[in-house]
This record gives sequence, C-alpha cells and structure tokens, in this order.
Amino acid sequence: MSESAKRSTSPSPRSLQQAAPGAITRLLISCADRPGIVAATSRLLTDFGANIVRSDQHTTDPRGGTFFMRMEFDLQLSGEQRAELQRRFAGDVAEPLQMQWRMWDAAIPKRVAILVSRQDHCLLDLLWRWRRGQLQMDVGLVASNHPDLRKDVESFGLPYAHVPVASERRSEAERRLLELLCDEVDLVVLARYMQILSGDFLDALGVPVINIHHSFLPAFAGASPYEQAKRRGVKLIGATAHYVTEGLDEGPIIEQDTVRVTHREDRTALMRLGADIERTVLARAVQWHCEDRVLRAGATTVVF
Amino acid sequence: MSESAKRSTSPSPRSLQQAAPGAITRLLISCADRPGIVAATSRLLTDFGANIVRSDQHTTDPRGGTFFMRMEFDLQLSGEQRAELQRRFAGDVAEPLQMQWRMWDAAIPKRVAILVSRQDHCLLDLLWRWRRGQLQMDVGLVASNHPDLRKDVESFGLPYAHVPVASERRSEAERRLLELLCDEVDLVVLARYMQILSGDFLDALGVPVINIHHSFLPAFAGASPYEQAKRRGVKLIGATAHYVTEGLDEGPIIEQDTVRVTHREDRTALMRLGADIERTVLARAVQWHCEDRVLRAGATTVVF
Amino acid sequence: MSESAKRSTSPSPRSLQQAAPGAITRLLISCADRPGIVAATSRLLTDFGANIVRSDQHTTDPRGGTFFMRMEFDLQLSGEQRAELQRRFAGDVAEPLQMQWRMWDAAIPKRVAILVSRQDHCLLDLLWRWRRGQLQMDVGLVASNHPDLRKDVESFGLPYAHVPVASERRSEAERRLLELLCDEVDLVVLARYMQILSGDFLDALGVPVINIHHSFLPAFAGASPYEQAKRRGVKLIGATAHYVTEGLDEGPIIEQDTVRVTHREDRTALMRLGADIERTVLARAVQWHCEDRVLRAGATTVVF
Amino acid sequence: MSESAKRSTSPSPRSLQQAAPGAITRLLISCADRPGIVAATSRLLTDFGANIVRSDQHTTDPRGGTFFMRMEFDLQLSGEQRAELQRRFAGDVAEPLQMQWRMWDAAIPKRVAILVSRQDHCLLDLLWRWRRGQLQMDVGLVASNHPDLRKDVESFGLPYAHVPVASERRSEAERRLLELLCDEVDLVVLARYMQILSGDFLDALGVPVINIHHSFLPAFAGASPYEQAKRRGVKLIGATAHYVTEGLDEGPIIEQDTVRVTHREDRTALMRLGADIERTVLARAVQWHCEDRVLRAGATTVVF
Repeated sequence: MSESAKRSTSPSPRSLQQAAPGAITRLLISCADRPGIVAATSRLLTDFGANIVRSDQHTTDPRGGTFFMRMEFDLQLSGEQRAELQRRFAGDVAEPLQMQWRMWDAAIPKRVAILVSRQDHCLLDLLWRWRRGQLQMDVGLVASNHPDLRKDVESFGLPYAHVPVASERRSEAERRLLELLCDEVDLVVLARYMQILSGDFLDALGVPVINIHHSFLPAFAGASPYEQAKRRGVKLIGATAHYVTEGLDEGPIIEQDTVRVTHREDRTALMRLGADIERTVLARAVQWHCEDRVLRAGATTVVF
Repeated sequence: MSESAKRSTSPSPRSLQQAAPGAITRLLISCADRPGIVAATSRLLTDFGANIVRSDQHTTDPRGGTFFMRMEFDLQLSGEQRAELQRRFAGDVAEPLQMQWRMWDAAIPKRVAILVSRQDHCLLDLLWRWRRGQLQMDVGLVASNHPDLRKDVESFGLPYAHVPVASERRSEAERRLLELLCDEVDLVVLARYMQILSGDFLDALGVPVINIHHSFLPAFAGASPYEQAKRRGVKLIGATAHYVTEGLDEGPIIEQDTVRVTHREDRTALMRLGADIERTVLARAVQWHCEDRVLRAGATTVVF
Repeated sequence: MSESAKRSTSPSPRSLQQAAPGAITRLLISCADRPGIVAATSRLLTDFGANIVRSDQHTTDPRGGTFFMRMEFDLQLSGEQRAELQRRFAGDVAEPLQMQWRMWDAAIPKRVAILVSRQDHCLLDLLWRWRRGQLQMDVGLVASNHPDLRKDVESFGLPYAHVPVASERRSEAERRLLELLCDEVDLVVLARYMQILSGDFLDALGVPVINIHHSFLPAFAGASPYEQAKRRGVKLIGATAHYVTEGLDEGPIIEQDTVRVTHREDRTALMRLGADIERTVLARAVQWHCEDRVLRAGATTVVF
Repeated sequence: MSESAKRSTSPSPRSLQQAAPGAITRLLISCADRPGIVAATSRLLTDFGANIVRSDQHTTDPRGGTFFMRMEFDLQLSGEQRAELQRRFAGDVAEPLQMQWRMWDAAIPKRVAILVSRQDHCLLDLLWRWRRGQLQMDVGLVASNHPDLRKDVESFGLPYAHVPVASERRSEAERRLLELLCDEVDLVVLARYMQILSGDFLDALGVPVINIHHSFLPAFAGASPYEQAKRRGVKLIGATAHYVTEGLDEGPIIEQDTVRVTHREDRTALMRLGADIERTVLARAVQWHCEDRVLRAGATTVVF
C-alpha cells in the first residue's frame, strides 16, 4: 500500500516549520512479528545514508503477534533516488518479511476536505489551526448540507460547497460529494457532519474518514449524547474521534478525552463544555493522522 | 426522614480535626422549589443562635423544579436543645414547605461495614484513610466471600467475617450478612465485592450501599470491563462509584474518573492503572457520603 | 461598592439564553463573619418576593474570619423597585453588618475591551465565544500595539485601535489607551498583550484588568516561560489567568490549568500545547468574571 | 557504565508477570547523534538471534544533538553468551560510536532502600505496590530518623532501621546510613524523608536517589509548600519526583502531576489532596526507574 506522492501539491498557507522540506521521510510498517525486522529495515536505510531521527514500534505479542513500526529518517533524495529506495525496500525487506508498508515525504501535506452541518466549533478550530500552520494538511474544500457557514469558510479563502441532503435522497447527495472529493483528497474530516454515510460511499471514496462523536464512546452512542448523559447523571462527559466504518459509532478510536461536570450543568452547559472537548479531540486526531502517526490495528488503532 | 443520632457511638481511631465536636450540625433538605425556603430556614437557625458556616443549594428549575439544600451551622446544643430545634424546624419550616429533611451532628461518624472479595486495593485504601482520620466513619466490620484478606484486615484491629457464597445458595449468605449488618451500620461499602445483592437484601438492609464499578459507566457495564475496553480500543479507562439499586450497574452515580491509556497497555496493565482510579473514586464517594454531601435526585445525585 | 447599572447598554450579539432578562439579580457580599448574615439577607429578599435560585458562601474562619457570599435571585423589578430594594438592603442589612456589597442585573452584559499584541489565539477564542453568546459581555473595542490583527478583528464587526508603544514613551501610549477606555468599559482583558501597564494607568482606569500568563504561576514568572520550562525539564506546562496589579505576575489568580508534556516537545511544540491551555484558561476567567462569580480576597480569589 | 548484574538476588515477593525470566534484556544508550546507530545496534542483536520487542529513541537535534535509545530484546542467554554479547557490543558498536551504555536483565529486580520520616502515605503505597508485584524491585531496608513507622514496616516482613539525626550531627547519621546502604542497593527512595543529604553522602552512596517534593517544582521549592500554595491562592497543587542532587529541589525531574483545588480547601485539606498526588507520582517514578525507562539528560530526563 505504498502511497508515495507522485502528484504536485500546492503549498500550505504558512510554512510547516517542523518539516525540513524534502529531508524527512516517514516509513510505516506492519507485519507478523519475528526477529530481524528492525535490523533489516535500519540496515537498508543506513546503506542509503539515512539518519533515523525517530522510531516507534509496538508488538501485540513478541511470539506470534503483529508488529507495527513507524520511522522518520533524514535523507536528501532526488525523485529518482526515492524510487530506487522504494524499489529496494520493497524487494529486499518488505517482500521477504511480508510487510504492509508505505513511505511518505513529510514535506507533502495531506489533502483534506471537511464536511460540516451547522455547528461551527470543530470546523473553525481546524481552520484556525491550519492557518497557523499547525496541521500538516492542505484544506481543499468545505462541504455542508446547510448553507449557514459559507461566510466563515470563505473568509479563510476556501471554497464552500452546499450539498443539501433531502430525506430519502441521500444517495444523490453522496454522488455529488463523490464528484467533489474523489481523487482530490487524502482524508475527509467530519467536523460535526450530522449525516450517516453509506458503506457504498465509503468504498467509492477510498480514503480514510475521521469523525468526531460527542460522547466517550462506547457510552451514549447514537443521537443526543448530552441528553443521555444528563439523564444518566454522569460526572464526566467526553468526546471521541474515530475512523468511520459502516457500523455507526463503531470505527477504530483515535483519540478521546473527558471533562468533569456536576449537577449544576444543564443540557446547554454540557453542550458548551463538550464543544471544547470535541474540537480539541478532533484537532489532535487530524494532526496525528496527517503526521502518519495512526496505524489501524483491526478494530482499534496504534497511535505513535 | 430525620436521622438525628440518639445512639452512642465509639470514637473514631484518630480525632477528626475538621469537626469541632458538638458544634457543627448538617441540615439536608429537598422539596419543591418556591420562594422563601432559604429565608424560613435561616431565620429559624438564627433564632436559635446558629452561625451558618457553609451552604449549598441547587434547583433543577426555579419554576416548578426540585430544590436541594445542604447547610452546616455552628451551634453548641445540649441534647434537649437539639430536640427542641428539630421539633421547631419540623413544625415551622419543614411541614409548611413539605420538605424531606434530616439533621446530622458532624461529630458523629457514620457506622460503616465493608464487603470485599479477593482484590485488596480498594479495601486497604479505605482502611488506610480511615486510620489517618480522613474519613468521618467508624468501620465496624469487614465481610468477605473469601478468606484471603483476613490477616490484612485484622492488622487494622478490625473483625473479619468470612461469609462464603455457595452457588445457588445466595439467599443463605445474604441472611447471614443481614444478621451481621442490620441496625449496626449506617452505610455498606462494596470495595470490589463480586457478588450481586438481591433487591430483597437491599430492602431488608435499609441503609445506603455504595459500589465501585471498574469502568466509566454506562460504558462496559457488566463483567470484565477491562477486557471489553481493550477490545474496543478506548484511549481512556475509568471507574464509577454509585449507590446500589436492584438494576445492576444502574444506580445513581456519585463519582467517576478516567485515566489515559495507549496501545501499549495490555489487560494486566489496564487493571493496574484502573486499580488506582478505582480506589481513588471509591474513597471520594465514601468521604462525600460520610460528610452528608451526596443527595439523591431520582436516578442521579447532587454532590455539594 | 454598589455597581448597580444605571446606564443603557447595547444588546449582546446573540441572546444570552441563561439569563431571563430583568429577572435574575446577583448579589455579592463580603464582611466579617458573624451569625445572622444569611438570615438578614434572605429575609429582606423574601420580603420583596424574590426566589433565591443560587447561593454560594465561604468563610475563611467561622470565628473571626471573612465571609463571602454570592446569591442569584429571581425577581421582576421596575427601576424604581430596584432602587428601593437597594436602599433597603443598604440601610437594613449592609450597614449594620458592615458589608461590602454590590448588585448586578444578570441581563446586563459587562462592557469589555481586549488588548492584544501579535499572538491571535486568545483573542480569536474570546471573540468566537462572544459571537456564540457564551460570554456575558459586550466587546466594545480591541486595541493593540501592533497592526497585525486588524483584519481578523474587523471581520467580527469590531473596531480595532492601533496604539503603538514606542520604547521610552510608554506613558504616551497609556494616555491614548485611557482616552479610549475610561468610562467605556467594565473590564479590560489582556489577551497576550506583551506590555507592562503602570500602576498609574491601572489607578486611572479604575476597572478590573485580567491577564493571561503562559505558565503555572508562580513558576516561570517573567519572560519566556516556555524556554524556562524546557530548560528545567518539567513534565507539565500550564497557564494562569489573574487580575493585574502593579506587582508583575503577582495579582490574585482566577484560574489555572496544566497539560502533560514530554522530552519530545521542543519549544515550538510547547508553545502550541500551551496556546490551547492559555485560551481555555483565559476564557474561563473572563466568563466567571462576567458572571460575577469571582470575588477578591486579599492576594487571592474566591470563585463561586 | 555497564551494570550487568553479576550478583545473586533474592526473588521478589511475588512473581513479576511482565518479565519472562532470563529472556528480556534492556539496552540503554546515549551518544552524539549520527547516522548508523540504530543499524549497528540492531544488526549485532540480530546476529545473536535477538528479537527487538520494544524500542524508543530520542534525539535532541538530528544534526549535532544527543541521541538516546532504549531497547528491549528477547533472547535466551547463558551467562557466557551474555558476556560474549556484551564484549562484542562494547567493541563493535559502543566504542566506535563513543556510546555510554548499559544492559540489564529484566528478570533481576533493582535492590531498593526506602528512607522516610513520619508521614506514612508514600511509604505504605510503595510497599503495597511492591507486595502486589507491581514494582520490579526488592526492598531490602526501610530507614527512618523517627521510630514511628516500625510496626507498619515490619508487618511487611521488612527490617526497619531507626537512624536518628541529631541537630549538628548530621554527618554521623549519614555515616550510619552509608554503612547500611553501600553495596547493598541499586536505588534509594526518599518517601517524604525530611532531611537534606549532603553532597559527600550522595557521592559516597554512588547510586541514584529519588525524592518526592510536595509541590509542582519549581514553584514552592523549599519548606512548607502547601502553606505557600494557600497563601498564593493557586488553583492547582502538585507533586514532583526527581533525582536528588546537591542543589536542593533542583535535580532532574522524573514525573509531576497536579490536582485542582479551590478556596474551600484549608491547609489540612490541601495536605490530604496533595498526599494522593505525592504517592502516585512517586510510585510512577520508582516504577519507571526500576524498568530502566528513565535516562538522565543533563539537568532533565528522558522517560521512555
């Protein structure tokens, strides 16, 4: 699943200071655990003159488990050299060890589309962080089933697509979204987009989708989590960012957080406190994804 | 529901520095909200010469909701004067306003029994805090369905009752427990007691029962919450202290907390991290209950 | 120190749902603790037909300490009735008990000016919350010693005053600020305003000033707290919102919070993590101040 | 600084389930950063048949900074083979790359002595975790300048040495402590030991010393931090575990945490809340040290 970037990408609005352009490459690996994985990988990189500047690994079980690794290495490469490195890695390392792997040039931001309904807090927080250069992404489009947030979005110099979702005509809206998104983005972010996406849509889209759910899943899955929380009298409310799968609110969790509440907070106050957690949790998940720090591991994730 | 204490009580092992003996009384009230509750209450107390040193109140809705209040007042009272104050309060304030209410002399610790199975962390933490004088309670008994923790308990100078629970003979064990507990305690604490208590037992017992559940309810109710959490891949685990009702894991929540976990933690590590949260959350709930700071509000609680 | 509002005030940009206009009044009191304060206060309010919907109190010591109280009462008042209530409270309650006190109509937002330098995160977060109706304030002006943020501020429909601070001519800038602010605002917020304000300026201004400091004071007071934190190797960084006094970074603390960091975060990453804490802590402090929930108590605060 | 263990060690009171005996070795490295470190290290380990099951690394700067690495590898070794591995690693890897390094057999617990004064909470929490098998250490001795905690310590089956510290005769007490500790322990833990240790003592001792300070250093260094915190009116209190150096409260920080407080907590309440943070923070620091997860980096630490 090599995703090395062969496309040209417009630069991010402000420079990403953490990535020295063209120098840092990220390598992500998963395979059955066995001796020699680190040695084979690091030897090849060293042969090319790379300096491994960060490395994280995880094994679900040293004997018979699955091994996950993420490396960042520092290496000035021409396009040709990069192709040669990828060819050699594929043949000499990945194939013998039956790895799933990909490399990503850290200087290339992910191309991102954001879907939103009426609530602005998650959207504005992402756009504000993006404008400050905190997220390694290029936002190409914001789409919404409502017209409300057009002015806010356009003030960031971004196009706003209003794609209404008429009841019983969801598939039409999804077709329109696919036209807008397919081959244009590496990631779709649902920033409080209150529509369910079909399995067919997700398949056709073919890139990861991150959603923010306004509860600490699996508690209060489904609709109206703050009302459920108030009724149950919990002393903490939370939010969950997860990859979207066909099973509603069941995709692999990337990040969660909670905040303390008391009897004093009514439903409105819970929503306000919750909004702060939602935007923070979603921003972390998007940041980590764009930095290639999240690996799927079945129904869960490994976050390096 | 006046619970003013007319019984003699053995002193706590170390003095409770926060309560000047005989001086601080706690008053708890709930009733339909309406103007004049605070005025009527504070006027009567002032007429008796009391100084209100702490007051908390909550209304679910200023128009037509339920009003909750907790006051601490400083007043040196003979037994006779206390009876007079209670009589006057009942007649002049509580009855006209249709209050549920109780007064409690802060110098009198709650009489507590602890039920436990094999895990020692919640039990030892409670006993250690009790010995330091941090909990306004007198522990009269520890009972367990296992013999394992006898030595630990006896080293605190406390009796240990081994009440085995043979399968299909739960009612026999509950009968034995009722003999030990009835009229002897003001509170029962389940410090990881892994047996379900019947509704009949709870009715016969007639005092509150606090349980610690090793998840952030309502997520992962029922058995093996840490395994459920590992499988679901949550990024936070938690614990919940709640009053026990017949509906398993559904009683009013008193306190909850969470701790961050990652892919690195296996089930054993989750249990260790969770144990720290469990003992802390249970200790807070027991402390607040013993300080009369927890009021039931239907399926939830108000904690002042 | 009665501050009952006799001026007309333009409405907040969106309605403040928590305050039913004209109905909720806040009463703040501090005085030497003694019996009868709650009774005298609540009796007078009840005589006027008020329903006390929230009440908080604190005493530094029941015998000889200082007593603080904040009440919210629900009472429809004409301007004349309000004046009568204030007159009666002053004469019958406040004077005999030697209280400092003020009443505030909860429907009247505080008039606020924000001072900022170049960093936009605290400013934008406050303006965004204000636009959503989360803060009970009317922003009248943003002033800055730099021109950078004019466009952002004007997109919220607010005036932006550029008041440069030439070195050695601070007093000139302060004079200009006083012209802009005096008699126009109830509160000044320093949202990362990187200039020291003189004691003369604070005296002439005559209203509270809230500052956000980017460390958990008293650690790392003064300049460059993130560099200090990195050098010292702390495992938590924080932020502190406090009232401004002449002593730099020494005013009464309103709110603080911390976030966990590791060896991985360089100074830039610390600043990013810190920015999230700064904006959250400042927003809480401003919210609480605007809801009259913060009382000064010498060099510290009581937050109800 | 190879510390491979050639001594016999009595087993821990309960088996340490996380370490399969004799199989897991930890390797810790620090050196100037340059390409090839990971490759050279992992190649040698793979040549010996090791499986690297965990690896963490950090560089202060990929160009010219310091590189830190911790690896855990799975390899069944006889004593002879281990010596050969160490010889080869020293000659082929460590010397050419000018590394500081050590290997540690994960099955061998650290030998630990605990010093304490009168407060029992940190001590009891460590002993309780040790008894549960949560800490990879063998406690050999508890020493105190007071006799108070003898009974508690002896109930864990441990010797208790009372070493009084008469004023102006500190050096005598330190001599006595050195007799008890030298060559007997790998780590000394100060679990609220309220005496200052001299630089000469630390030099003669020759093993790391971990202290718990009851504030979030560098705030409130020195004596009576809770009183300082109350006076300053902070909204969070904390605790700090650090390695002891001659500069009081200035050693490299291993772990910190904070807890929220309000105006309600008096000094006694702050001490109680703080005690929970102190014991948790100290337990984490001791656990991480015993698992060889803490590397010193000048005045700071890297915690893997």
